[in-house]
Amino acid sequence: MKAYKDMDRDELLTVKAALEEEYKVIEAKGLNLNMARGKPGFSQLALSMPMLDVINSESDMRTVLGNDTRNYGDLDGIGESRKLMADMMSVQKDNVIVCGNSSLNVMYDTIARSVTHGVMGGTPWSKQDKVKFLCPVPGYDRHFKITEFFGIEMINIPLHDDGPDMDMVEKYVNGDAAVKGIWCVPKYSNPTGISYSDEVVRRFANLKPAADDFRIYWDNAYCIHHLYDDVHDEILNILEECEKAGNPDMVYIFSSTSKISFPGSGISAIAASLNNIEHIKKQMSIQTIGHDKINQLRHARFFKDIDGLMAHMKQHAKLLRPKFEAVLNTLESELGGLEIGTWIKPRGGYFVSFDSLPGCAKNIVAKCKDLGVVLTDAGATFPYGKDPNNSNIRIAPTFPTPEEMQEAAEVFVLCVKLASVEKYLTAN
Amino acid sequence: MKAYKDMDRDELLTVKAALEEEYKVIEAKGLNLNMARGKPGFSQLALSMPMLDVINSESDMRTVLGNDTRNYGDLDGIGESRKLMADMMSVQKDNVIVCGNSSLNVMYDTIARSVTHGVMGGTPWSKQDKVKFLCPVPGYDRHFKITEFFGIEMINIPLHDDGPDMDMVEKYVNGDAAVKGIWCVPKYSNPTGISYSDEVVRRFANLKPAADDFRIYWDNAYCIHHLYDDVHDEILNILEECEKAGNPDMVYIFSSTSKISFPGSGISAIAASLNNIEHIKKQMSIQTIGHDKINQLRHARFFKDIDGLMAHMKQHAKLLRPKFEAVLNTLESELGGLEIGTWIKPRGGYFVSFDSLPGCAKNIVAKCKDLGVVLTDAGATFPYGKDPNNSNIRIAPTFPTPEEMQEAAEVFVLCVKLASVEKYLTAN
Repeated sequence: MKAYKDMDRDELLTVKAALEEEYKVIEAKGLNLNMARGKPGFSQLALSMPMLDVINSESDMRTVLGNDTRNYGDLDGIGESRKLMADMMSVQKDNVIVCGNSSLNVMYDTIARSVTHGVMGGTPWSKQDKVKFLCPVPGYDRHFKITEFFGIEMINIPLHDDGPDMDMVEKYVNGDAAVKGIWCVPKYSNPTGISYSDEVVRRFANLKPAADDFRIYWDNAYCIHHLYDDVHDEILNILEECEKAGNPDMVYIFSSTSKISFPGSGISAIAASLNNIEHIKKQMSIQTIGHDKINQLRHARFFKDIDGLMAHMKQHAKLLRPKFEAVLNTLESELGGLEIGTWIKPRGGYFVSFDSLPGCAKNIVAKCKDLGVVLTDAGATFPYGKDPNNSNIRIAPTFPTPEEMQEAAEVFVLCVKLASVEKYLTAN
Repeated sequence: MKAYKDMDRDELLTVKAALEEEYKVIEAKGLNLNMARGKPGFSQLALSMPMLDVINSESDMRTVLGNDTRNYGDLDGIGESRKLMADMMSVQKDNVIVCGNSSLNVMYDTIARSVTHGVMGGTPWSKQDKVKFLCPVPGYDRHFKITEFFGIEMINIPLHDDGPDMDMVEKYVNGDAAVKGIWCVPKYSNPTGISYSDEVVRRFANLKPAADDFRIYWDNAYCIHHLYDDVHDEILNILEECEKAGNPDMVYIFSSTSKISFPGSGISAIAASLNNIEHIKKQMSIQTIGHDKINQLRHARFFKDIDGLMAHMKQHAKLLRPKFEAVLNTLESELGGLEIGTWIKPRGGYFVSFDSLPGCAKNIVAKCKDLGVVLTDAGATFPYGKDPNNSNIRIAPTFPTPEEMQEAAEVFVLCVKLASVEKYLTAN
């Protein structure tokens, strides 16, 4: 394959004409496919249906400790769900509060609490002149929306193959007391799929923040979401590393079963040092009498333990692999050698991140939409929705069937090619 | 019966000696009863167990509109749960957002949103000099804890038999722009059990608030929680009355099924004008992708409609009546004529409110505790936990069995008598 950049105008025009023919053929099909959000597919949801039989009218509704899950109580979650989530998050049970159906909501509440009441007794952010957050990019749009909503200034930090650019992170965190946090998806990152190296995690744990109320917002959303049975990414335990480094209170860890059991009907959790947990519980005791303990019991009894969880995740992986392969193989076979885009082959998580030639992402997404394939908005993976290079596109392969995914991937590569040719023709 | 106030010192000493004998007998029993919180009893929880069979692995998980409740979506709740909660709250479906497991959490979030982002585009409360709330007293301790947590100044408003003192409410709301809200439990009020008269509701709807961002926080927690089949309190529809009065946006209504299905595993809702709903949804879309729709489906399919809900509530009432009667009959038979306390016989709700002689409440609660009967802390029904008269005690008869409730009521009246005698002896 000849790289587009090496083609002259005539060659580009020839390629363009052929692509436009293809475009018309697909246009006529009237496709309707959605790769916009990281939604589990139908077959994945079916995996968890037996969970709905675990609790029924004949069930003993008491926890192992004898508490009635049907009544008020257990603000930090029932013991068995705390143990399950603790094992999943590689922390101790006492460091975990099991919450409601959404870890996003827990993250929102954590930021909101810091804004109104400060972090662990510190000055509320609303009473501080300036609050900034570091945002490794590309990243998760809903993280950025939370910090934007609270008027927190966001600073882009490049995300490399082994994690965020730690030189920049150290410079900002250690040098600027207005920097209060950093959003991290440390394992199978959203959207690039990379996992943080041991070196990166250790550098995180050894930060010397200028601000006492600086925290790492460690959204370990994909902690057990491996795509393959044999090759797993593993990351260092941030809570332990922070303790070792003398920064025991510096991290909040979030996770949920949204992409394990049911999105919207799973359970979520926050993990942190006992000091942090104590402060969080104080606020939480004002906000609620407790979370849904029957659903906690349902999860604990269905998965039983971490082994049950891991076995369940293998079934998810089996369903997801063909979808990821449809995308990755199509990218490789159709774009290999053209030098019009780069991507990483993830070993887990929910996304494939694609970087087009600078300036092409919005055009690609628009063309895909024209052809009936909805992608996440270009720019969404950056704070304020602004990708300075207009090149990153998040592909979410989980919701369509493998066949649909194949079809969508073909549409995608076509649009990448066409947008790239258009770019070179405009430039020349 | 001779009223204590008319007894001379010798008579009081004779009564006291007899009461102390009784006290010793009960002390020896080593009771362990809890009337502190409004928790449903075991038999009430059993009523909702069949709900846990309604959704199982064979269920069609789609809503009437065809949405899969197992996946992300439906931020404002699935249609059938919105309809159910709308009918329960006497509003239209479009005015309702169905939320998570806790209306307290929805109230907290509503206040938190106003603090950080203002009410419907107004100045955030955190940026205003002073924010005040009116608190009809006695009232619900968890309401007061929320406003206290956010540093909102609370002003006591006497609660009469037909609702809050509206002269005071009008004076504050219409005259002071720092007054941003009032906490109301308009039906079967917590704790006194009274319901607001039509006149009171109309005066609420016709307030002319000095502050644009004033709202009525209408916690209709006990809207269908009647104790009797034949006699129901009914209140005017505040949303309609506010519309009529030209104040369509002035009220937020809250409710939940916590004391209908399961506390902690029910569904909650907020109802308001479409303008308010739109603003709430904007913030909610940052906070969460959606609430637990499977649980919404479970509730909608189990109760079916408002008739199903009302039939279910009749079963609750049947279980609750003997407990309330144990309290009320004992109060009447043991304290009638002694002039050492007053109470209201409620027709619904979860509590009996008792007013002792001024200065006696803490002593009564302490004595009950000594005898193994835990009551809500004296003062809890007032902002900052401070009952200026030290006389109000909230009795929660729902959790114990009727037999236990009888026993507890006997302990209670004994302690009331003893504390009252002690008061008169000290005064003399």
